[in-house]
Amino acid sequence: MPKLEIIPVTGLPIIEKGVDVGEIIVKAVKDMGESFIDGDILVIAHSIVSRAEGMSISLKEVVPSAFAQKIAEATGKDPRQVEVILRNCRKIVRMGDGVLICETPHGFVCANAGVDASNSGGTDIVIALPKDPDKSAENIRRKVKELTGVDVAVIISDTFGRPFRKGTINVAIGCSGINPLWDRRGEKDLFGRTLLSKVTCIADELASAAELVMGQADEAIPAAIIRGYKYDRSNLPARVIIRDKNEDLFR
Amino acid sequence: MPKLEIIPVTGLPIIEKGVDVGEIIVKAVKDMGESFIDGDILVIAHSIVSRAEGMSISLKEVVPSAFAQKIAEATGKDPRQVEVILRNCRKIVRMGDGVLICETPHGFVCANAGVDASNSGGTDIVIALPKDPDKSAENIRRKVKELTGVDVAVIISDTFGRPFRKGTINVAIGCSGINPLWDRRGEKDLFGRTLLSKVTCIADELASAAELVMGQADEAIPAAIIRGYKYDRSNLPARVIIRDKNEDLFR
Repeated sequence: MPKLEIIPVTGLPIIEKGVDVGEIIVKAVKDMGESFIDGDILVIAHSIVSRAEGMSISLKEVVPSAFAQKIAEATGKDPRQVEVILRNCRKIVRMGDGVLICETPHGFVCANAGVDASNSGGTDIVIALPKDPDKSAENIRRKVKELTGVDVAVIISDTFGRPFRKGTINVAIGCSGINPLWDRRGEKDLFGRTLLSKVTCIADELASAAELVMGQADEAIPAAIIRGYKYDRSNLPARVIIRDKNEDLFR
Repeated sequence: MPKLEIIPVTGLPIIEKGVDVGEIIVKAVKDMGESFIDGDILVIAHSIVSRAEGMSISLKEVVPSAFAQKIAEATGKDPRQVEVILRNCRKIVRMGDGVLICETPHGFVCANAGVDASNSGGTDIVIALPKDPDKSAENIRRKVKELTGVDVAVIISDTFGRPFRKGTINVAIGCSGINPLWDRRGEKDLFGRTLLSKVTCIADELASAAELVMGQADEAIPAAIIRGYKYDRSNLPARVIIRDKNEDLFR
C-alpha cells in the first residue's frame, strides 16, 4: 500500500488577468525540478483562476443599490461588496450578523456568494468565483496534457464555511478528469455487510488535503499536486456534488 | 517547501472490545518497518476506537420504544437501530425520508447520531461514537508517547454528511496534541490586506486527507499517519470545533 504525497506548487508569480493558468503551472512544476505523472491530481485555489479570468472587481467602480445598502446595514458589511455579492448570488439563503449565506449561480451555498476580499489583489478589490469552474478545470487539464503529454485530474477549490462546525475547509467547486463522488453502495464492508449509503465526496477530501500545503507557507501556494491516489477517471463536473434543494433538509 | 506524506497504517487486526488501540497501532507501524516521527499526526477511524471501547450494540438485544417505532416508520429505518440512535442523541435536528439528523451528546450534528451499521462487526450490530472522543485521542497519544517516546498528535475521525453538498467527508470528532482550528485573523494576505475572518478547521482537513488512504484499500485501513504538516501544538479538544447553536444560522 503506497504512501500518498501532496506536493506544493511553488514559485508561481502573482496571476494577472489573461494569464494561462495551465501554462504557468506547468512552467512552475518544471522549475521545481518536478514532472507531472499520469494520474496526478492538480488542485488549484480558485483565486488565481478567478484573477486570470478577469473576475476581480474594483470596489471603487461599484455603486451599491438601495437593497445592497440595506443589507450592508443589517450585516455590517461594505455596501459596495454587498452589491458585488448580490450580482453573484441567485438567492440569499441566510442573513445574520456580518454573515450573508448565498446560493451562487452555479448552485453552491457559501458565504458572500464566494466573493472574497483576501488575496484579491488590493484593499478595494474583491474577486468572484469563476463563471464556470468546471470549464476552467477542463481548460487547465487540456493545457497540461498539451504541454506535458500527461493526463492529470484538475480540481478548482475554494474554502467554504459550513453549518454546525467552526472554521472553513477547502472544497471542490470545479473539476475535470475525475468523478468527484465515489459511490460505494453495493460494496461489502469488512464483515460482509452490503454498504447501503456510502458515497464519499473525494473531490472535497482532495481539496482539503491540498490546502494543508497550500495554506501553510508564508509565500502564497495556490496549487498542489496529489500523487498516489487512485480514482475513477470518469469526467464528471463538480456540480454533481450539489445537493438538490428538494433533497436538502437545511434549505 | 517539503512534501506532505500520508501513510496508511496497514496490518491491523479486527479490533475487539478491550484492545488498547494505541498499543496495537504502535505494533502495526513497527511491523510495517516504519517509525513515528515527532510531529506526525495519527488519524484513526472512530469505528476501531468505538469497538475497543465497547460501543458495539447487538440489535438483537434492543427493544424499540413506541417513539422509536414511530420514527422508524416515518424514516424507513430498523426500529431497533432508531432506538440506539435515540439513546445516543440529545436532539433530533431534522427528519426526512430515511434520514435522521441528530445532535449527539458531544454536540456534533450528524446523521443517525453517528450510530453506524457498516464495519460494525456483523449484520445485527451497530456501533455508536466513543463517549468522549477527545479523551480517547488523549489516551492513544499518551500510549504512543509511552511506547515510542515520540510526541504525535491524534485525531479520531468519522465520516459526516453535510447540508448543500452530496457525499460524506471525514471530519475530526476527537483530538489531542493539536489545535484543531487555525485562527489566522490579523495576519496579512499576499497583498498586505489584514485577514478579517480566516479560521481554518485543519483538524477536519487532516481527517479528510487521511481518508484518502483509509478508504482506498480492499483491506480495511482504519488509521493513517500524516507527516510533514506543521501545526499549533496547543492541546485543544475537537469539541472547540462545534459551532454554538446561537451562532448557527442553520439550527
